[in-house]
Amino acid sequence: MAQKPSIPKGTRDFSPAEVAKRNYIIQIIKKHFKTYGFQPIETPSFENFDTLMGKYGEEGDRLIFKILNSGDFISKVDDVTYSSKKSGSLTPKISDKALRYDLTVPFARYVVMHQNEIDFPFKRYQIQPVWRADRPQKGRFREFYQCDADVVGANSLLQEVEFVQLYDAVFTDLGLKGTTVKINNRKVLSGIAEVIGAKHLLIDFTVALDKLDKIGEEKVKAEMLEKGISENAIAKAQPLFGMSGSASEQLGQLKDLLTDSEIGLEGVAELEEILNTIDTIGLQSAKLELDVTLARGLNYYTGAIFEVAAPDGVKMGSIGGGGRYDDLTGIFGLKDVSGVGISFGLDRIYLVLEELDLFPKSLDISLDVLCLNFGDREGLASLKLVSALRNLGLRADLYPTAAKFQKQLKYANKRGVPYVILLGEKELTEGTFVVKNMETGDQKAYTLENATEFAAEIN
Amino acid sequence: MAQKPSIPKGTRDFSPAEVAKRNYIIQIIKKHFKTYGFQPIETPSFENFDTLMGKYGEEGDRLIFKILNSGDFISKVDDVTYSSKKSGSLTPKISDKALRYDLTVPFARYVVMHQNEIDFPFKRYQIQPVWRADRPQKGRFREFYQCDADVVGANSLLQEVEFVQLYDAVFTDLGLKGTTVKINNRKVLSGIAEVIGAKHLLIDFTVALDKLDKIGEEKVKAEMLEKGISENAIAKAQPLFGMSGSASEQLGQLKDLLTDSEIGLEGVAELEEILNTIDTIGLQSAKLELDVTLARGLNYYTGAIFEVAAPDGVKMGSIGGGGRYDDLTGIFGLKDVSGVGISFGLDRIYLVLEELDLFPKSLDISLDVLCLNFGDREGLASLKLVSALRNLGLRADLYPTAAKFQKQLKYANKRGVPYVILLGEKELTEGTFVVKNMETGDQKAYTLENATEFAAEIN
Repeated sequence: MAQKPSIPKGTRDFSPAEVAKRNYIIQIIKKHFKTYGFQPIETPSFENFDTLMGKYGEEGDRLIFKILNSGDFISKVDDVTYSSKKSGSLTPKISDKALRYDLTVPFARYVVMHQNEIDFPFKRYQIQPVWRADRPQKGRFREFYQCDADVVGANSLLQEVEFVQLYDAVFTDLGLKGTTVKINNRKVLSGIAEVIGAKHLLIDFTVALDKLDKIGEEKVKAEMLEKGISENAIAKAQPLFGMSGSASEQLGQLKDLLTDSEIGLEGVAELEEILNTIDTIGLQSAKLELDVTLARGLNYYTGAIFEVAAPDGVKMGSIGGGGRYDDLTGIFGLKDVSGVGISFGLDRIYLVLEELDLFPKSLDISLDVLCLNFGDREGLASLKLVSALRNLGLRADLYPTAAKFQKQLKYANKRGVPYVILLGEKELTEGTFVVKNMETGDQKAYTLENATEFAAEIN
Repeated sequence: MAQKPSIPKGTRDFSPAEVAKRNYIIQIIKKHFKTYGFQPIETPSFENFDTLMGKYGEEGDRLIFKILNSGDFISKVDDVTYSSKKSGSLTPKISDKALRYDLTVPFARYVVMHQNEIDFPFKRYQIQPVWRADRPQKGRFREFYQCDADVVGANSLLQEVEFVQLYDAVFTDLGLKGTTVKINNRKVLSGIAEVIGAKHLLIDFTVALDKLDKIGEEKVKAEMLEKGISENAIAKAQPLFGMSGSASEQLGQLKDLLTDSEIGLEGVAELEEILNTIDTIGLQSAKLELDVTLARGLNYYTGAIFEVAAPDGVKMGSIGGGGRYDDLTGIFGLKDVSGVGISFGLDRIYLVLEELDLFPKSLDISLDVLCLNFGDREGLASLKLVSALRNLGLRADLYPTAAKFQKQLKYANKRGVPYVILLGEKELTEGTFVVKNMETGDQKAYTLENATEFAAEIN
């Protein structure tokens, strides 16, 4: 009868200690999303099959979790489809819903459906789980949170500037100093593809370039060659691999390279404005760095692209990323709405904070004070005291039974409670309670009427 | 190409205004969960098929959303099963995961899986969505949040007392005064079934009794009769329908009725202790009421049962409920772990607060100050100012483009921003900015160096 329980691969239980740390990160991200004028929305965990399918490429379609229709779903499948016994043709007949794969497509769907209620420019944030049927591996899960902020309906580069500031604000607040916000512009990449004569291979070009960090110059060039980009074209793109100097020097080199590309020069001008503005305003602890090899896999970006690297010395992929995409809502029938957005990688930020020991120690404390239980009469007085402390905002608990003193103390130690209250027969007679500081061992007595005094002292 | 987007029936998008109100409720519930010593856990959205199936009865099994296996799932179905073309036999072959149906079974699974890391008694809270393939109707959704707090590994009635206090604390904090926490005990119901000679029909008896509020005495009796409970037995149970007087008077009547039932008297004694303790300690705004007709549908309760009614005059089903269940973790192989827990009905609480106009007006404000945009030079100074205000914790925004003044003002009005900043050419030259109070129309000037002064004034 009894089963040995387990959870599906790629999913996780979060213990109280883990939830506390995750919520700490989420609260800080949320706080800054709000001060930057973003508003929260939430969308359903599952969307209609057709809303999601075809939006993430063929690979994406495969990785979307589909939900089986309820009831006698098979009776609705026609005989021809059924007798084919093909998963591909059967799926749309037995599933009309699918779990959210990211927050961007549901957001586009939301904007189109609610366009008449929305005041544009619309700055929204969304922090919800997404699901992907990816092969689980270290740091890759089938259920994970995305923390996204996007603006739709604003073409101004001010948005890009604000997003750089927002990254800086969040990471500074998390104590994660020395992050690098890398910036590039898809127009620059388009321009390069154009001037080297590989315009028709732009996607292959950017996909290969995106791997420079991981596989190095030689292998990137080999991949480009393999994809049909000529040796001559790759040679023309050589300045890309050897960019150096300050941002403005690099922008100068790019301008030289892109003299003949209108779109390329437009990208350079945009980069210039963003870099100059951030230079004028300043950042707290992050640095903004031009990285012309930054390409990002997603094809829908059309302007600025961002990626955030953890501080030097921490081995970790990007802990955030984003960019500008024109016309995302076009797929749902609303044309010419420009969007730009960024995302925070919760799981990776968690790992970085853990590695650098940056989580506040206070997160380890889940209970401020535990009142020991010495029996019915004392218990009632203790319950009153604990109730008073809770009303004062303390996280307080009364041990549920008059178990042996050592057992109760052991529990207090395991929970890591900083203060233990002793209210035994003697104290009850005297109308007092004794507080033991679990770290120092010091004890101090208070009168029962004066719980406030104790609460004020430890707050 | 373009699709007219929609969302699956029974699901909801939440707008910024709705998220703000939902989060307001959730934050207050969380705050009190914490002060009462509960710790958060989170479990995956989907569990293994076998973890959930068979735990909620036949009807529950049908209402669980199953997730289609990835890849070529059909090729793994044997020919015999496939040729039967029966949804029931096919389902377990093409689905090995299912969406969480409630938070209690995943919690039981969590406790069993993590029993060696947990310090008992374990007080956990969990606020996550659950999914049910129910027919959607007013107030009933296919995706909705549950807000649960449970204690496992503590047999003391202190837990029941604390849950009554917890309901009182949350509803008082929400400004929802005059709620009634109804309490009963399954042992009393068992005792009654025993003394009237209908012990073998206990479930039918309690299921019928549970409907008293909705369908009235006559129909409840008719249902009992139909289920095979004799007229004689129903007549013996008559005192149940006519209980009156104070709680202690009702307890007296129950003791008379249950003289010959050990379990019944045990239930009465438990009720007595809980009622007396709450009487001694007092509640802030709720009242605790004995309701011997309270049965609650769920069969796993074994001791106290709770249900919370909204204040008089509000037509709404229960806004919270719970009880004690022994041996919940038994289904996963861990015996003799007693649990007791309560749940808050987020959607219904939302509707009640809306009806009674109890949401704080401050929730309508999503942006404290909007800085209008008068062009590039002014925009840069404005961005600096807005950045400073954000660093001071204000929710501040700069209109993204130098659009027409009226257009920007219209946006400010629609967003309901209380303060608008004007930083035009004149102000820039003078090194000042002007703040317009959108409600009163008053304007006041500040120097650009002194953003702190303005922030302090409006905080």
